[in-house]
Amino acid sequence: MTKTEQLYEGKAKKVWATDDENIVIVDYKDDATAFNGIKKGTIVGKGVVNNKMSNYLMQILEKHGIPTHFVEELSDRETAVKKVKIVPLEVIIRNRAAGSICKRLGLEEGMDFVCPSIEFSYKDDELGDPLINGYHAVSCGFATKEDVETIKEMAFKVNDVLKEYFASIGVELIDFKLEFGKTADGTIVLADEISPDTCRFWDIKTHEKLDKDRFRRDLGGVEEAYEEMMKRVGLN
Amino acid sequence: MTKTEQLYEGKAKKVWATDDENIVIVDYKDDATAFNGIKKGTIVGKGVVNNKMSNYLMQILEKHGIPTHFVEELSDRETAVKKVKIVPLEVIIRNRAAGSICKRLGLEEGMDFVCPSIEFSYKDDELGDPLINGYHAVSCGFATKEDVETIKEMAFKVNDVLKEYFASIGVELIDFKLEFGKTADGTIVLADEISPDTCRFWDIKTHEKLDKDRFRRDLGGVEEAYEEMMKRVGLN
Ligand SMILES: Nc1ncnc2c1ncn2[C@@H]1O[C@H](COP(=O)(O)OP(=O)(O)OP(=O)(O)O)[C@@H](O)[C@H]1O
Ligand SMILES: Nc1ncnc2c1ncn2[C@@H]1O[C@H](COP(=O)(O)OP(=O)(O)OP(=O)(O)O)[C@@H](O)[C@H]1O
Ligand SMILES: [Mg+2]
Ligand SMILES: [Mg+2]
Repeated sequence: MTKTEQLYEGKAKKVWATDDENIVIVDYKDDATAFNGIKKGTIVGKGVVNNKMSNYLMQILEKHGIPTHFVEELSDRETAVKKVKIVPLEVIIRNRAAGSICKRLGLEEGMDFVCPSIEFSYKDDELGDPLINGYHAVSCGFATKEDVETIKEMAFKVNDVLKEYFASIGVELIDFKLEFGKTADGTIVLADEISPDTCRFWDIKTHEKLDKDRFRRDLGGVEEAYEEMMKRVGLN
Repeated sequence: MTKTEQLYEGKAKKVWATDDENIVIVDYKDDATAFNGIKKGTIVGKGVVNNKMSNYLMQILEKHGIPTHFVEELSDRETAVKKVKIVPLEVIIRNRAAGSICKRLGLEEGMDFVCPSIEFSYKDDELGDPLINGYHAVSCGFATKEDVETIKEMAFKVNDVLKEYFASIGVELIDFKLEFGKTADGTIVLADEISPDTCRFWDIKTHEKLDKDRFRRDLGGVEEAYEEMMKRVGLN
């Protein structure tokens, strides 16, 4: 597998084309951003943690029957994945109230929900990734009705699997963001990453934050939190 | 039916208790507000138009099997309705892009959707009636899963009936806001009002606005638009 040209440089990863037209290489950086790119910084070692953790979790999900883009880990920071057309939706599952939803709905952080919820943001940086719902996604042509149904089902299944897995390593999965994409043959697979950048992880007993909120909120111990998650997942 | 004490004075209506504990009287005012109460004014005659038009439309909906709070028109501005506990959701159906959604999603006003969409706002003035979805409504305890399903079904049926009715009088139903409530026996019924305050009406040929957008956007001819709608509905 060899990199040819760089297709995209995002806030946290670079995406490279390869000699196989159905495969791209993602290359994880240490760059960190928050609040829609307003806050910028570096989290030393983050790229390695996110690459390895994401690959590990995607393989767990594959074992539970959830198709993902994962193909092969190439190095500490690089992974070969199936090239997909990303569905322009950020898919968020919430098990407990945290982050933006607390302010929007006047909820206390940590409030336990009656049941998990799913929500969609339209992936558009200029518009600030606005919250929409599945009906808007269909009515505006961002996805078909069938794709929205498939994505909802897959996302809730991801939640079931990951919630249980993280509980087994002493971590509560508070909420997380997923992205889905379509492969060349039209199959919807889980894409992008699953990492402390895209999940909220709380220590199950102390409720200590072990994720990017330490960076967002200047809580200190940012690198240490990423390393702690890496250790709990058994990757170092 | 006699009014006893005033239960509530809202931005557009007063609600009175009566000697029947299951009945309240709504009393329509000419007061107009927009942008969450920031813009204030008066639309002379609006209370009469909204009262009569809402009652007329609710009776059409009843004939199509949709239960409503309507009981009896008492005067030009007053109507007896079933007392309900309002489900704290503003239920919006959109057939064509207009108003807030255009800015949020970068859509051109008048854009035709692939299909109608439904959305929910959490009725809370202090929070600015934030957009939520059906999952949030359930997870936060604003409504049960069954109630959300019933409300969605009823709202789409209201849209089918009203879209067809308005087309027959030369009006395109662009979007509208509904409220639902629960009667003493737990039945969900359509409540509040259906009027030029809560719907966007465009002349089907010229696309002239015949609703509260004339007030919101200082387009002039506000009273005339309400009167025109009254005339088309055949009420004067
Ligand atoms: N399997 C895949 N095939 C193609 N693109 C992918 C795949 N997985 C993820 N991507 C996309 O690659 C990019 C990864 O870069 P990064 O996460 O740094 O982007 P970003 O700055 O968050 O921007 P965006 O707003 O597009 O997510 C994202 O746009 C993501 O949607
Ligand atoms: N059948 C009903 N029984 C009880 N309350 C009702 C009924 N129908 C409507 N209401 C409520 O009566 C009030 C009507 O007043 P108005 O429309 O002026 O309120 P508003 O200023 O828009 O405030 P709100 O934000 O509560 O809607 C609303 O709170 C509405 O939810
Ligand atoms: Mg990203
Ligand atoms: Mg009202």
